[in-house]
Amino acid sequence: MYYDLIRDAEALKEQLIKTRREFHRHAELGWTEMWTSCLIARRLNDMGFDQVLTGRSVCKSQARMGLPSKEELNAAYQRAQSEGADPDFLSDMKDGFTGVIGILNCGEGPTVALRFDIDALPIQETYDPNHLPNQEGFRSIHNGIMHACGHDGHITTGLGTAELLVKYRSQLHGTVKLIFQPSEEGVRGAKSIVENGHLDGVDYVLAAHIGGTPDTKISAIGTGTGLSLATVKMDVAYTGKASHAALSPHLGKNAMLAAATAVLNLYAIPRHGEGDTRINVGKLTAGSARNIVCDHAKLELEVRGSTSESNDYMEAYAQRILEHSGAMHDCSCEITLMGAARCGTNSAKLTALVADICRHKLGLSQVTLEDGAAGSEDYSYMSEHVQKHGGQSCYFSNITHCAGSFHNEHFDFNEDALINGVKAFTGIVLYLLENTTKPSF
Amino acid sequence: MYYDLIRDAEALKEQLIKTRREFHRHAELGWTEMWTSCLIARRLNDMGFDQVLTGRSVCKSQARMGLPSKEELNAAYQRAQSEGADPDFLSDMKDGFTGVIGILNCGEGPTVALRFDIDALPIQETYDPNHLPNQEGFRSIHNGIMHACGHDGHITTGLGTAELLVKYRSQLHGTVKLIFQPSEEGVRGAKSIVENGHLDGVDYVLAAHIGGTPDTKISAIGTGTGLSLATVKMDVAYTGKASHAALSPHLGKNAMLAAATAVLNLYAIPRHGEGDTRINVGKLTAGSARNIVCDHAKLELEVRGSTSESNDYMEAYAQRILEHSGAMHDCSCEITLMGAARCGTNSAKLTALVADICRHKLGLSQVTLEDGAAGSEDYSYMSEHVQKHGGQSCYFSNITHCAGSFHNEHFDFNEDALINGVKAFTGIVLYLLENTTKPSF
Amino acid sequence: MYYDLIRDAEALKEQLIKTRREFHRHAELGWTEMWTSCLIARRLNDMGFDQVLTGRSVCKSQARMGLPSKEELNAAYQRAQSEGADPDFLSDMKDGFTGVIGILNCGEGPTVALRFDIDALPIQETYDPNHLPNQEGFRSIHNGIMHACGHDGHITTGLGTAELLVKYRSQLHGTVKLIFQPSEEGVRGAKSIVENGHLDGVDYVLAAHIGGTPDTKISAIGTGTGLSLATVKMDVAYTGKASHAALSPHLGKNAMLAAATAVLNLYAIPRHGEGDTRINVGKLTAGSARNIVCDHAKLELEVRGSTSESNDYMEAYAQRILEHSGAMHDCSCEITLMGAARCGTNSAKLTALVADICRHKLGLSQVTLEDGAAGSEDYSYMSEHVQKHGGQSCYFSNITHCAGSFHNEHFDFNEDALINGVKAFTGIVLYLLENTTKPSF
Amino acid sequence: MYYDLIRDAEALKEQLIKTRREFHRHAELGWTEMWTSCLIARRLNDMGFDQVLTGRSVCKSQARMGLPSKEELNAAYQRAQSEGADPDFLSDMKDGFTGVIGILNCGEGPTVALRFDIDALPIQETYDPNHLPNQEGFRSIHNGIMHACGHDGHITTGLGTAELLVKYRSQLHGTVKLIFQPSEEGVRGAKSIVENGHLDGVDYVLAAHIGGTPDTKISAIGTGTGLSLATVKMDVAYTGKASHAALSPHLGKNAMLAAATAVLNLYAIPRHGEGDTRINVGKLTAGSARNIVCDHAKLELEVRGSTSESNDYMEAYAQRILEHSGAMHDCSCEITLMGAARCGTNSAKLTALVADICRHKLGLSQVTLEDGAAGSEDYSYMSEHVQKHGGQSCYFSNITHCAGSFHNEHFDFNEDALINGVKAFTGIVLYLLENTTKPSF
Repeated sequence: MYYDLIRDAEALKEQLIKTRREFHRHAELGWTEMWTSCLIARRLNDMGFDQVLTGRSVCKSQARMGLPSKEELNAAYQRAQSEGADPDFLSDMKDGFTGVIGILNCGEGPTVALRFDIDALPIQETYDPNHLPNQEGFRSIHNGIMHACGHDGHITTGLGTAELLVKYRSQLHGTVKLIFQPSEEGVRGAKSIVENGHLDGVDYVLAAHIGGTPDTKISAIGTGTGLSLATVKMDVAYTGKASHAALSPHLGKNAMLAAATAVLNLYAIPRHGEGDTRINVGKLTAGSARNIVCDHAKLELEVRGSTSESNDYMEAYAQRILEHSGAMHDCSCEITLMGAARCGTNSAKLTALVADICRHKLGLSQVTLEDGAAGSEDYSYMSEHVQKHGGQSCYFSNITHCAGSFHNEHFDFNEDALINGVKAFTGIVLYLLENTTKPSF
Repeated sequence: MYYDLIRDAEALKEQLIKTRREFHRHAELGWTEMWTSCLIARRLNDMGFDQVLTGRSVCKSQARMGLPSKEELNAAYQRAQSEGADPDFLSDMKDGFTGVIGILNCGEGPTVALRFDIDALPIQETYDPNHLPNQEGFRSIHNGIMHACGHDGHITTGLGTAELLVKYRSQLHGTVKLIFQPSEEGVRGAKSIVENGHLDGVDYVLAAHIGGTPDTKISAIGTGTGLSLATVKMDVAYTGKASHAALSPHLGKNAMLAAATAVLNLYAIPRHGEGDTRINVGKLTAGSARNIVCDHAKLELEVRGSTSESNDYMEAYAQRILEHSGAMHDCSCEITLMGAARCGTNSAKLTALVADICRHKLGLSQVTLEDGAAGSEDYSYMSEHVQKHGGQSCYFSNITHCAGSFHNEHFDFNEDALINGVKAFTGIVLYLLENTTKPSF
Repeated sequence: MYYDLIRDAEALKEQLIKTRREFHRHAELGWTEMWTSCLIARRLNDMGFDQVLTGRSVCKSQARMGLPSKEELNAAYQRAQSEGADPDFLSDMKDGFTGVIGILNCGEGPTVALRFDIDALPIQETYDPNHLPNQEGFRSIHNGIMHACGHDGHITTGLGTAELLVKYRSQLHGTVKLIFQPSEEGVRGAKSIVENGHLDGVDYVLAAHIGGTPDTKISAIGTGTGLSLATVKMDVAYTGKASHAALSPHLGKNAMLAAATAVLNLYAIPRHGEGDTRINVGKLTAGSARNIVCDHAKLELEVRGSTSESNDYMEAYAQRILEHSGAMHDCSCEITLMGAARCGTNSAKLTALVADICRHKLGLSQVTLEDGAAGSEDYSYMSEHVQKHGGQSCYFSNITHCAGSFHNEHFDFNEDALINGVKAFTGIVLYLLENTTKPSF
Repeated sequence: MYYDLIRDAEALKEQLIKTRREFHRHAELGWTEMWTSCLIARRLNDMGFDQVLTGRSVCKSQARMGLPSKEELNAAYQRAQSEGADPDFLSDMKDGFTGVIGILNCGEGPTVALRFDIDALPIQETYDPNHLPNQEGFRSIHNGIMHACGHDGHITTGLGTAELLVKYRSQLHGTVKLIFQPSEEGVRGAKSIVENGHLDGVDYVLAAHIGGTPDTKISAIGTGTGLSLATVKMDVAYTGKASHAALSPHLGKNAMLAAATAVLNLYAIPRHGEGDTRINVGKLTAGSARNIVCDHAKLELEVRGSTSESNDYMEAYAQRILEHSGAMHDCSCEITLMGAARCGTNSAKLTALVADICRHKLGLSQVTLEDGAAGSEDYSYMSEHVQKHGGQSCYFSNITHCAGSFHNEHFDFNEDALINGVKAFTGIVLYLLENTTKPSF
């Protein structure tokens, strides 16, 4: 069975590369992946998926974080339309309801969910002639937006996996959910999918990220503890009152002082004794002119924690600081939640199984990743939900040679990773749903 | 008439000096001037004042600010008793009810109030053999307490004035109130006298302070605008929670951070466009040990303003900062009012009159003081009250050669000032109450 | 003689209004008043001034503060050229050498300098149809730039005065200097004129500002103490190092912390006991993205003082704070001087004379202005220089009905002020230079 | 052989308890353990140790941290003398040269060093009649000083071990060093012993701490990773200049502002991406009076790191903050190093061996301790030195029932721990030095 899979996956190579490049050309930011979602939905539909969810069925409206403005959403809609987004699906996506879920019902058995993230980054892609997308003509056609984190590869892997699973559906016993999640950048989208109930009853959930550097020589599946940091992203707006700085400073309400007090105290939140924490105020703009008391300030910040407790501690403390720093200077304070993730961790058994399948059944190179988490992933909302209800999760790395570094204008990856990803995901699902008595590990 | 006064005042010299030295020996801090108050009351009584108010009749209990602890008040009581304080009055003073008011009812006519402050300072008097109190054997017998601001002279001037006014009472038409006010240092006492109604119906209120430096060669009465800064004194206590700084910093509530945030923001209160302001955090003690999260902090601070508005602005802003700095770090914040004064300013007409009487009727040197206020005086509660109700106020300077500087362990003043003070106060009252048709200025 | 002057000034009315509107249409920001300067130079030249200084002769290159970027200067040059700026003068103004000085040598006698400021503000003029410039078609043709402070009127007054002084030159005994100063907004230009020596040997220097509100009903010359606050304007750039906020916050150099520390401490500079002070950080921009350690921050700030000492104190203290706040967080700190003014104060005798001439010789209404300074004027560099060398200065107010408030998009003034200004300046010069034995006040 | 040891150790019970109580009664603070050191030296001497080092031979003078004042050292000396400290040794200890090292030379073979800390804490021992020292009459005779951390037990264990090792010396092949270290509290002493070369050439170094809570029911030897945090303790003194807060705040140099800026920025030191860090300002005293600009401030603080790199990062950053916070407000800043420790970690092999010997050879209960370091130990200077030179280290826990908690006035421990400690230390040394071919683990 795995021999067929290996052969079938390799046969998809040309098609996968073509698909990936199409997505790369149409890079779209979080909550505006409309052209992208339409194409995914079209393909899943055409393959014969039992259910293809789009629009409001995918993400719970109120749980979406860091939504662009109405104007930006409308502009994205116009753009998708003008670029020929499939009219059967496009209207569903109005107002930022992107993302697609494909479901394959294969009778009795466990439910396996696979998550693929689909959004791009606000990065201007390089014009460097050595950059493959320039050589091969698939540079992003959207100015200032680029798939610089490999999500174009993730989508493509998901569609390749979809195709093979449809092909092998008679061998599957259970349910498969392919979740094409919007807005992973800024950890904004996963929560709204979980809150719509899509992870309820899921026994196994998996996701992968392309990994590698310009020095990476191997192509391999990497597995490890899957630790990721919990995080909360906030935008904060202080509103005070302007006044002439020489004539009547006492009539102002000084948002500059509120912001400076907040910044210093935020970094000064005492360390947590039982979890590593982070705080960063990455951006601050305040005031209008030298001789006017500053009447507005805007901060963009994030907290993180290596445990959910330490992250919650940071969030609650930060909120207290933000509010009282404003109130102290008689300024109002508006805090907007812009993104969030939970602590992620792999289930040991499923992770061992993934390593085993990749190495022994699929003939893929397999490496063990070192401990230690530094980044955050909103996939953690999915894994936490599944694990809390007795299920298992594994987040693994699809390692290959990469050009540039992640989130860099030169980023690119070896397209062999597409095949490896399809092999791994399809192989794991096959194993888990081969028959209902398994897995006996 | 003024000739008699000049002669009579000079005849009191020996007695005034003796009296002053007695008070100097028994220097007592604010709200513990029990020995002092007993002696004042005894003397006024013996002179034949119509009313001699002591105890709770003088200061309104709840309006007294910066009261010492019960223990300190009890200790002061014991001490006064052991030093032979007059038993006819001492019991009235239990629990810090010091101060004396003597009233002379001389028929129809205006009411003139004179204020003399009676408390000493927490300063260890020098052992320098050149210091007059050491030479003449009247160094303070109370360790660490000293009349280093001349209030011993003020009391003495008040008693000398009392004696002459009793002598001339047949020439007076109206009412005289001699207010011996406790707790002027730290501006803690005047408000409680005003709130007991003692300034109601007062037409003229006056007070004086001994002034001068080691370089002062003249003895003179100085008059000017009488400007003094409004002020509020506060003690602030933050209470947090201790915790081990390495094991569980997150379980602490860090009063050190609350205090540091408060200090920086207090000084950063924006300037007032229509009044000069001041802020000072003069003392801060926080925490117990290096490796324990600080659970308590105490600040001693004051704000000032050259107008009542700017002082109120500082007080309200400071309170906001203090409370929110605590709340931000989950610490409770207790603010105790320790003293307060209003903006003082002389009534121009009365001031001109004082200058005129001193120079032309009493033959005293008279100088005009420069503009500009820097200090604060709680006499301002009295002057503000009287002026608001249509009366007039004058605060003048009894200038003479002084040794050391004010609030210094070497401070002393030329005792000639006692005679000049008696002349000035008595002369002014005589003029104002000579007959009811006056003053016609 | 003054009758002729009154009549001649009134005869200029039409021409002055036309001139003013021309300048209003071509509003130019500080150091880019190229079209404006060319027209002034042309006119002075044509009138027959003995010397007309332009370009590098006017402002000392290195002493110019708050210069726009090279690109902005070049763009302004192109614009002036395209709008027909006089080619005889334009090339002098390349690189921001604007401003014009006209000199009339009338033999032996004192030197009188008059200063007129010529720059506009970065304000978008209103499209309100009730706004006179819209009704009469002289709205600024430069988008986002507007004469909203009346300097168009000041220039026009200067040119009207020039015309009459040329006419009466036979009656003048001494030297007249008309200084058309660039970059008064932001107090950037005056210092560079003084440093080029143009105020050396000046006996009398005068300037005026249009004043008034929508409630002003009179047209009058206002005189007073002429107090203005000393000030220093600074731009501050902190440069740190970016780093990933979760992976390696310790590898960053956090310019956000430097900026926040600076802001709090700047406002917290202790008050000055002998002068009123001001501090304002009006604008702050810092950082690039939420999850990146902030590597750059820019502050725009100003300090002020009611005395030169208190302003110097603020400047020195601010610099210390700025540098050490950066160094503390291992960030470099670059401080750029953007503008400065000294304390201004009128010479009492010249001010009395101005009042007297306006009221009694020129028949203008004259009012006395209240005490108290709040704003700053870089004319103070001129007055300070002249006064230090034994000369006299007077800064007066040309009061008239104004629409909108100063620095507002609706600002406009009653053009009668143009005539009054010409009368006042011309009359004062006439009086001062009528013959060399005067003034005998 | 181990049977003899078990029996001999148990036979010492009475004597050990008596010895422990003697030390408990004479609790002495760090660098003043003079009575204590004299008794240790006397005993080692009497047992026949080959070398007994005292005084300047033990701790390197300049490397001693957090030394008390001269006055305190002299008073401690007088006290030790008055309490009958052995005159043969006392004079060596003048000026704070406490601590004792006993050496047993047993021919060829490895060198084993055992470290026992000997100082007490500034804690007032409870008068609670249920407290064993009160019941049995060995409450500390030194007011405010108490062995509340079990070091009295550590010394006693060391002396019991010494006695047995002398007894078994014929079976030992190598060298034994018993290091009785002063000033462990505040991590002040170990460095000065290492710098005197006493750990040079040591192959195995071991130490133990009594551990347990009121809930502990077992007596056992606990072994684990032995992780401890690196730390640096600093005292900081800011010196500014006093001034009257209302008259001349600008003439002051405000140490309060320096201290507040330092505190906020210290806590705000960015987290380290590769090590857990700590910062605590545990104590702050600043200023003298409400209306005086604060001219001095003193901070007591500590930083910690779970790696030496992160601790060094914290120390360097803290110093930068401290210095620039002072300089910003024109205050001088003096930083005094008060204590320091390195990161400690056990050598895996030796630790496994200790567990094995205790469990299988000595019949002691043995438990494995959980991961995670929170405290700091200056034993780390010894372990780091030995490990760097190829040797091994193990720090283990001597677990037993304890009353109260550590550093609490009710602290006490089950004296059975004394026997267990003697068994463990003696057994380990016996094993390591039994013959030179071992250990073959």
